[in-house]
Amino acid sequence: LRINGPSHHLIECNQLINNEYVMIRQASDCCMYFCLCAQQIDEEVSKLLQLKAQLGGDEDKHTFVLKTAKGTRDYNPKQMAIREKVFDTIIRCFKRHGAETIDTPVFELKETLTGKYGEDSKLIYDLKDQGGELLSLRYDLTVPFARYLAMNKITNIKRYHIAKVYRRDNPAMTRGRYREFYQCDFDIAGQYDPMIPDAECLKIVHEILSELDLGDFRIKVNDRRILDGMFEVCGVPDDKFRTICSTVDKLDKMSWEDVKNEMVNEKGLASEVADQIGEYVSMQGGKDMAEKLLQDPKLSQSKQACAGLADMKLLFSYLELFNVTDKVVFDLSLARGLDYYTGVICEAVLTQTTSAPATQERNGPAGEEGVSVGSVAGGGRYDGLVGMFDLKGRKVPCIGVSIGIERVFSIMEQKAEAQAEKIRTTETQVLVASAQKNLLEERLKLTAELWDAGIKAEVLYKKNPKLLSQLQHCEETGIPLVAILGEQEIKDGVVKLRTVATREEVDVSRAELVEEVKKRCQQL
Amino acid sequence: LRINGPSHHLIECNQLINNEYVMIRQASDCCMYFCLCAQQIDEEVSKLLQLKAQLGGDEDKHTFVLKTAKGTRDYNPKQMAIREKVFDTIIRCFKRHGAETIDTPVFELKETLTGKYGEDSKLIYDLKDQGGELLSLRYDLTVPFARYLAMNKITNIKRYHIAKVYRRDNPAMTRGRYREFYQCDFDIAGQYDPMIPDAECLKIVHEILSELDLGDFRIKVNDRRILDGMFEVCGVPDDKFRTICSTVDKLDKMSWEDVKNEMVNEKGLASEVADQIGEYVSMQGGKDMAEKLLQDPKLSQSKQACAGLADMKLLFSYLELFNVTDKVVFDLSLARGLDYYTGVICEAVLTQTTSAPATQERNGPAGEEGVSVGSVAGGGRYDGLVGMFDLKGRKVPCIGVSIGIERVFSIMEQKAEAQAEKIRTTETQVLVASAQKNLLEERLKLTAELWDAGIKAEVLYKKNPKLLSQLQHCEETGIPLVAILGEQEIKDGVVKLRTVATREEVDVSRAELVEEVKKRCQQL
Repeated sequence: LRINGPSHHLIECNQLINNEYVMIRQASDCCMYFCLCAQQIDEEVSKLLQLKAQLGGDEDKHTFVLKTAKGTRDYNPKQMAIREKVFDTIIRCFKRHGAETIDTPVFELKETLTGKYGEDSKLIYDLKDQGGELLSLRYDLTVPFARYLAMNKITNIKRYHIAKVYRRDNPAMTRGRYREFYQCDFDIAGQYDPMIPDAECLKIVHEILSELDLGDFRIKVNDRRILDGMFEVCGVPDDKFRTICSTVDKLDKMSWEDVKNEMVNEKGLASEVADQIGEYVSMQGGKDMAEKLLQDPKLSQSKQACAGLADMKLLFSYLELFNVTDKVVFDLSLARGLDYYTGVICEAVLTQTTSAPATQERNGPAGEEGVSVGSVAGGGRYDGLVGMFDLKGRKVPCIGVSIGIERVFSIMEQKAEAQAEKIRTTETQVLVASAQKNLLEERLKLTAELWDAGIKAEVLYKKNPKLLSQLQHCEETGIPLVAILGEQEIKDGVVKLRTVATREEVDVSRAELVEEVKKRCQQL
Repeated sequence: LRINGPSHHLIECNQLINNEYVMIRQASDCCMYFCLCAQQIDEEVSKLLQLKAQLGGDEDKHTFVLKTAKGTRDYNPKQMAIREKVFDTIIRCFKRHGAETIDTPVFELKETLTGKYGEDSKLIYDLKDQGGELLSLRYDLTVPFARYLAMNKITNIKRYHIAKVYRRDNPAMTRGRYREFYQCDFDIAGQYDPMIPDAECLKIVHEILSELDLGDFRIKVNDRRILDGMFEVCGVPDDKFRTICSTVDKLDKMSWEDVKNEMVNEKGLASEVADQIGEYVSMQGGKDMAEKLLQDPKLSQSKQACAGLADMKLLFSYLELFNVTDKVVFDLSLARGLDYYTGVICEAVLTQTTSAPATQERNGPAGEEGVSVGSVAGGGRYDGLVGMFDLKGRKVPCIGVSIGIERVFSIMEQKAEAQAEKIRTTETQVLVASAQKNLLEERLKLTAELWDAGIKAEVLYKKNPKLLSQLQHCEETGIPLVAILGEQEIKDGVVKLRTVATREEVDVSRAELVEEVKKRCQQL
């Protein structure tokens, strides 16, 4: 037996830290580390390196790591300006569709999240047990929403919720994948006639992605009942439906060969069964495909597949009325990872069309043009989730979509940088300035007058700033007006109002200043 | 040795859970629990009871706790409407003063928070060590801000940050004290002439509390240098400055007798020293008090007290220019709990004036009228905090204030309830309805037309809803207009537009509907 790379590293760090973590060294000595997978070793190494940094080396006593937690980021003022623009577009759409908003805490009782996410549960952040309740950070906004409905016995609501969620996933930050990220959720809860709320959710995704102007996109739809029916007729054992579903979900990132391999070798599915699934999951189309599959000799034997396909037809007829079928594809390979979906599921992806835009039939299915560059929205129907929180199991049918905007932020930040756009990060209308010395008190007094009148005003925090540096501050931050005070102006009861862009200056009487600033800012 | 109450309880629970937690029973048997304090035992008991609930008793197999985590709350749509109104007021003020905004992650590396909060550090929420970095939930927005400045080498910024922070404190939710709560922070970082940014921060607190219209308030100010100078001249040992400061900070909740008792009996201060402190901390006033204390034979012996007092005079002269001295009191008992303050500190409290408003001198100190019902804002200068994150200790002077709005929400929710105000939680302008059967498709089509034109529209998710239930939905949610479709209207290319409040109905041509809805909503 030879100790491999990472373990060597471990021992090395260990020695540097000297007397700390003798236990770990002992464990290492007796080869216990060989049962750790490579990732765990890496994590141990990073922990030890961090400890080393905390304890400090010989030469440097004050080393600490100046960073944000892995997979997280700060937003600087420019990024915030972009973020607020994106939120504004999304919130306007949600409100256009008559949604209310709610908020829930960032952490939930651990048991609230238990058993809701299937294989993804391992990615949940737990809080340390510091006495009292066991808590976890929310993994999405859907389970807290279902908990909220059950707790408050709400059977009808259309709500949106925009908040951060937490997943201990492998971050890929340049592609907009973080461990802390925003979700913008829109959900409709209540017992209604079939497919009407479902169609509205897809309409919303269509509206938002169109308005954000991110290039072409596709909205894939499928139905868990169709997937389950497909598994049934292909001969997947009942108890493997969910885990095979998770594997199908990887088709957007893995080839069919790799997916089949996982089904057969990891999940123990018969190769012929996998092949039959393979035939179905390669199918894409529109309403016509739902009609065709209702005639499929094999699939039509499953009651739930037929129910799903009939609803898919109905869904597409509503989508036609909503004018969104140009972007919606019925895609049998769409599976979604989460356990709680029970009906329609959907996912929106941006497609990088490099050449001329593909021909689009108004109401027909979308073609296969473009390469998917990542999912930006997803959702589905979850009719059983609220019932899991109700003592008597009373169900509240729900459907919802979630816009994943980190990816959107990344694209828009790159765009803004490429265009070298000047984004203002403040809204200041006027800077109160002076060309002469000893006028700080006069400047402060005038600034307070402007604030009290609702004008957005700034003043430099210097006793005697140079006029040039005051004008420079306006140039840098985009302040359009300067109110200049001098001894003569004070005597005359006026202010010299300067337009930064044109350098024009006019005297304005002190009494009329507020109205004049308001008037000019409206014209800008 | 006898086993006391809680231990008995432990064994009882233990037996109920049967084979689980044998280890704990063994520990209990060999008396190890006697080294636990009463609180720990209570926590163990509650954990075991919780486990019991999870495992389920004999009669009830599906017991789970349907609640939010201790000290946290959901916001329902009405509460959100109030919250957004409050945020809007606060953000408008921050923008009026030229602030940008940033955001930071909800958790930080544990070491980022270590050593910043003094005795309050025990209230920090830690995340479970799941491999990788050790993380804690942010305790305030100030330390993450300082980390952000140091990390990005920013030496000048005026920013606001509105976000939730986390403290494992004893919640008192009816009084607006939570474990998860919002802070609205405004901070000015940079090397400027003394007291100008400090005065602006106090002006901001004054503006916000005035605009929120919460009744009368006081803004107490003091300076850490004055406090330290006072401790020095009273004979407090150097190494006890911070801990005695924490005790003085309790004067808003405890009597002087209790505070003195803690100083003498818990912190080991000589009784005479405590009495000298007691004389100073009873003093309140304005600019004149700063002038008087500069002549105080004892206090004037401390250099740093003199520096603080001179700055206090300067601060009040700026506050006069800003017209806010009516609410600001120089109060020697104000200490603030956190370790990182270095200069001016402040705290705003709402005062319940039951009878006629007290006389207020325009520029003079505020009197002692009213009873404090809780702090709603606080802050101060922290010139050393950013330097703690810089390898070379480079300092960035900062001052900031934080508006604690949970208390504000509580007051406004109670107000809204008392006045039985009808608060709209959606902004829907028009409901698309029908009096006849089989018009679902026509309703959906018209609704989509309105959405696409930017109108906020709803449609009931029923195939054939009754007109009455459609009108009821408008009454309940405050939708002002109904667009009614019937077969005749469709034939004529019109829509019956009904004003809910007046029950007036007029036919509007389909082509003019969007403009008509917009026009009417502007008039409302």
